[in-house]
Amino acid sequence: MMSVYGGVEAGGTKVVCAIGSSPDKLEDETMFATTTPQETIDRTIDFFQQYQRRKPLSAIGVGSFGPIDLNPASPTFGYVTATTKPGWDNTEFSGRISRALGVPVAFDTDVNAAALGEATWGAAQGLETFIYMTVGTGIGGGGMINGQLLHGLMHPEMGHLRIPHDLDQDPYHGACRFHGDCFEGLAAGPALVGRWGHRPEELPQDHPAWKLEGHYLALGLTNLICTLSPQRIILSGGIMQHEALFPMVRRNVQRLLNEYLRVPAILEQIDGYIVPAALGNRAGVLGAIALARKMIR
Amino acid sequence: MMSVYGGVEAGGTKVVCAIGSSPDKLEDETMFATTTPQETIDRTIDFFQQYQRRKPLSAIGVGSFGPIDLNPASPTFGYVTATTKPGWDNTEFSGRISRALGVPVAFDTDVNAAALGEATWGAAQGLETFIYMTVGTGIGGGGMINGQLLHGLMHPEMGHLRIPHDLDQDPYHGACRFHGDCFEGLAAGPALVGRWGHRPEELPQDHPAWKLEGHYLALGLTNLICTLSPQRIILSGGIMQHEALFPMVRRNVQRLLNEYLRVPAILEQIDGYIVPAALGNRAGVLGAIALARKMIR
Repeated sequence: MMSVYGGVEAGGTKVVCAIGSSPDKLEDETMFATTTPQETIDRTIDFFQQYQRRKPLSAIGVGSFGPIDLNPASPTFGYVTATTKPGWDNTEFSGRISRALGVPVAFDTDVNAAALGEATWGAAQGLETFIYMTVGTGIGGGGMINGQLLHGLMHPEMGHLRIPHDLDQDPYHGACRFHGDCFEGLAAGPALVGRWGHRPEELPQDHPAWKLEGHYLALGLTNLICTLSPQRIILSGGIMQHEALFPMVRRNVQRLLNEYLRVPAILEQIDGYIVPAALGNRAGVLGAIALARKMIR
Repeated sequence: MMSVYGGVEAGGTKVVCAIGSSPDKLEDETMFATTTPQETIDRTIDFFQQYQRRKPLSAIGVGSFGPIDLNPASPTFGYVTATTKPGWDNTEFSGRISRALGVPVAFDTDVNAAALGEATWGAAQGLETFIYMTVGTGIGGGGMINGQLLHGLMHPEMGHLRIPHDLDQDPYHGACRFHGDCFEGLAAGPALVGRWGHRPEELPQDHPAWKLEGHYLALGLTNLICTLSPQRIILSGGIMQHEALFPMVRRNVQRLLNEYLRVPAILEQIDGYIVPAALGNRAGVLGAIALARKMIR
């Protein structure tokens, strides 16, 4: 019998759950708002329990907003830890799902799950070292290095990079509760709302917000390129739905690197180097299924 | 018969060559200035040829200043490429040594070689994911992720990160030929000379240069921590010989992260998290021997 997996993409605003084994073999799917931990985790468990009454699940993968504890030796392994999301600070997550459903649960960041999804079925197939970054209500980054998901001491928190902030050009103080004008504090959705008084989707194509956004995104990506030397950077999230950002970001990255990194991928083929997610907004939940698959295989 | 290896640490100012199999089993060693490519590579070859007249070498490891080409499929594999070092732009390096001596040559960045040295015999033993960074005439970083040296599209160029630069506090424009006030442009030796008119070793303990240096180093490290989530950061190089920088950098990193990353290594044990190289200025050449060993084993 073919194995069937559950996938959970737990974002700061919504949760997507799916059941299946690959993008074209999904048996069920649901989506609901991320509310309190109790309600949110209960709804997640309910969805999979209904399936389990009919058929077994082999494993579940959870890609979660963070920060999360990924250290198996830690007493808070599988928890959401110092999050900015109200009510979720220090909340057990993967363990509750695993105990309630009686199946193994693979746990990782939402962005690492999505990165694995893109590596398995999307824009990172065949790559050993790449970055997946989402720019929406926050900025998060994950990826693979030499074919393995990036973890380390904890996990990357790429949104909290410090980048140059020219206060004459942009006097906005930044929206990050921890760091003020870090990358996320300058370039995620709340910064656009705080700076311009409008939500990103309300800003017209020719609004100066987009030029500044393209500048900050390029600064962040330049730092990631200098640190990780990725073979490709995959961008997703609400802000990246503004497609005109892609050519701006590519041009700005080239300008910032100033031909220091003499590789064709950056000098000549940057359109294939900084790309949108091939799985679109399904990278996260599909990646969560890939996490579960990887745990069993 | 036990294998004997050659190690070459090729820096921008000097080359160190050694022969042996571990720190306590070195048979010979030499050091000379990095001059023209022809003269420098000839001297390197001479040193090992003299040894080969008596005994065989199994392999040689070269840790080189960069940027370098590490892609085995590239026509310029083993070359120094777009370097700021006069005369060395686009110079074949490892291939010339390998052909002249008739032995396999492992080639990597100076900082990845040093990182491997620290992983094998020094401050990174037992770690899977860590950074090795040197701060001297330039800033370079390497390291291991999940137990493998970090390469990717090319190799990291951590000195060329962009960090905040408060022009009111520090009007110095930066010393990087490619990027002006990037991390290296603000915090490596030439920036100290350009900003203060003195070489780092001439600046007294209480000179304001050190406080500013500690600030920039902490900004760079914060970005590396947010991106790579290392289990430890090892610092070396001429500038880091000013030991008072270590407590300053640790305190500034904690302040910049502002308890966002709630891990004991950063919150409570940062003295063991940001540390000097255990192999000191021998990390590079010993790491080059480790590179050669790893190639054969």
